[in-house]
Amino acid sequence: MVYEAIAASGSTPYLMAYIATAFLSGLLYLFLRKVWWTNVPLKFPIIHFFIVTWSGIMYLNFLNGTALSDFGWYMDWMISTPLILLALGLTAMHGRETRWDLLGALMGLQFMLVITGIISQESGMTYAYWIGNALLLGVFYLIWGPLREMAKETSDVLARSYTTLSAYISIFFVLYPTVWYLSETIYPAGPGIFGAFETSVAFVILPFFCKQVYGFLDMYLIHEAEEQM
Amino acid sequence: MVYEAIAASGSTPYLMAYIATAFLSGLLYLFLRKVWWTNVPLKFPIIHFFIVTWSGIMYLNFLNGTALSDFGWYMDWMISTPLILLALGLTAMHGRETRWDLLGALMGLQFMLVITGIISQESGMTYAYWIGNALLLGVFYLIWGPLREMAKETSDVLARSYTTLSAYISIFFVLYPTVWYLSETIYPAGPGIFGAFETSVAFVILPFFCKQVYGFLDMYLIHEAEEQM
Amino acid sequence: MVYEAIAASGSTPYLMAYIATAFLSGLLYLFLRKVWWTNVPLKFPIIHFFIVTWSGIMYLNFLNGTALSDFGWYMDWMISTPLILLALGLTAMHGRETRWDLLGALMGLQFMLVITGIISQESGMTYAYWIGNALLLGVFYLIWGPLREMAKETSDVLARSYTTLSAYISIFFVLYPTVWYLSETIYPAGPGIFGAFETSVAFVILPFFCKQVYGFLDMYLIHEAEEQM
Repeated sequence: MVYEAIAASGSTPYLMAYIATAFLSGLLYLFLRKVWWTNVPLKFPIIHFFIVTWSGIMYLNFLNGTALSDFGWYMDWMISTPLILLALGLTAMHGRETRWDLLGALMGLQFMLVITGIISQESGMTYAYWIGNALLLGVFYLIWGPLREMAKETSDVLARSYTTLSAYISIFFVLYPTVWYLSETIYPAGPGIFGAFETSVAFVILPFFCKQVYGFLDMYLIHEAEEQM
Repeated sequence: MVYEAIAASGSTPYLMAYIATAFLSGLLYLFLRKVWWTNVPLKFPIIHFFIVTWSGIMYLNFLNGTALSDFGWYMDWMISTPLILLALGLTAMHGRETRWDLLGALMGLQFMLVITGIISQESGMTYAYWIGNALLLGVFYLIWGPLREMAKETSDVLARSYTTLSAYISIFFVLYPTVWYLSETIYPAGPGIFGAFETSVAFVILPFFCKQVYGFLDMYLIHEAEEQM
Repeated sequence: MVYEAIAASGSTPYLMAYIATAFLSGLLYLFLRKVWWTNVPLKFPIIHFFIVTWSGIMYLNFLNGTALSDFGWYMDWMISTPLILLALGLTAMHGRETRWDLLGALMGLQFMLVITGIISQESGMTYAYWIGNALLLGVFYLIWGPLREMAKETSDVLARSYTTLSAYISIFFVLYPTVWYLSETIYPAGPGIFGAFETSVAFVILPFFCKQVYGFLDMYLIHEAEEQM
């Protein structure tokens, strides 16, 4: 039902523009790392490449119906949002030993959070949605608590870069569940302020900043931090 | 069909109690680690938190129908049972270097085993079920063979704790496929001793001990082993 | 629709033979490692065991209908082909430190490539298919570029073994999308040269060489390289 509503909403040109910028950004990350930002560890352009490319591929599900079309957003978020947090976590841990327990917790919380979205949409009940919001509080605790502490201990430059980046991501990660809640297409029992067109366009604008732009921002900040360290 | 049978069986109060204990246990692990059992490595409460929280979220699929409801148990087990074995394996390797080849084998076998359950249920054939049981023998070999050896080499205290824990898990991991086989709802061509209500309640009692209780037991035993080491 | 066509095509004996060789090969890898090829690191037989066993289990979906039957090949490839590349990558890195950024990129590209196949089959559009082919170029770049360089730096013997192995895999990894494109069952809008029987048999022959035989070849080459190093 979600797919039909989106396909009929006239948002297809936005979706196509999103897909195109996704693939272009993915290639550009690798190019920038090769040519200018050579001091950025290779794992960063690789992670950002996968974030945008995966997202672009999942949005293809909205152009023509597939078995995944009704869950296209969740299929995207399931992989791309844990990777967004992986990039953020690795930025915090830049120049010191990787703490896999914290990264695992961060990515696991985010993955479960996305799954609660599917269950809420499909069951029409918001139990799972509110549990998802509680998990999001856990993500914020990790981002602003232990991870920020680690960045601070490393250097002032890194702490500033990391704080910018986590503020940026935190704002968007609050906007996602807000749009979800306000969307008539996803959650018909709710306030239903956003129709199919608005929902679809919102989920083009938010990920564009959270994925495409975020990749450049993250790599640029690490590049700058490296130069000053 | 599985979901409808469970939903109509009157087991909903049990399912709700299970979900509530799951989330409470998850929070309690983190609290206990912070306050009393501070000598337990952080990865243990994190893993146990994910085991019970994931399970609780998947059981929400049984409260109201979703696309995942017919596969709710498998969706739970796919993630939670490899994590149960990860916790067990890391307990065996406590205080020494992590052997990722053995952990990968253990978790991979368990994951495949759960998938054979889905295929058996859906195809109505038991080929996949018996292959799954063969994979379970592989899990038992790893638990009682190389992993136990590692725990023994480290210390007597750890060996005792590990043996308790693996006996506990082994008993439950034999009971799971037994219930599966005896359930009319899951495997109609079999003996069909358990109806929908009995199956649903069995899959509340077994995971309660295997996940919620197991988490406390594992953390307690590591805490004790740490004190005596 | 895919499953029905395959089930009716008369290819069932081939599928059963494939499944049998898969499980036998899996056990044989472990046996060979234990008895003769004891100098091969344990991770290799473990990875190859999972490649063939997973594939065998997924092919059970073609013997009797399940929820996964229409996607049986993709469900197989999703797990087994990234593992094939993991084995190849670890062979290139044999005797030196593991570069997880490169392995992650390799496996991630391959995973996404398989997903593009599902989307193409389901949507009936080839956008996703051609994106998948572009991702395959990325896989080839990694195999023939940085990974080959690493093998060369280690030793001449390893470089020769690795080159043999990557040529072998490259040929098969070109044949897979070719069969996909030519299959009437999968891609009805295409040239449609292969019917259901030919498609099904092709996807028995190709994986037999790419998985069962490949496992023995990889382990043999590492065994030989070890002896001469």
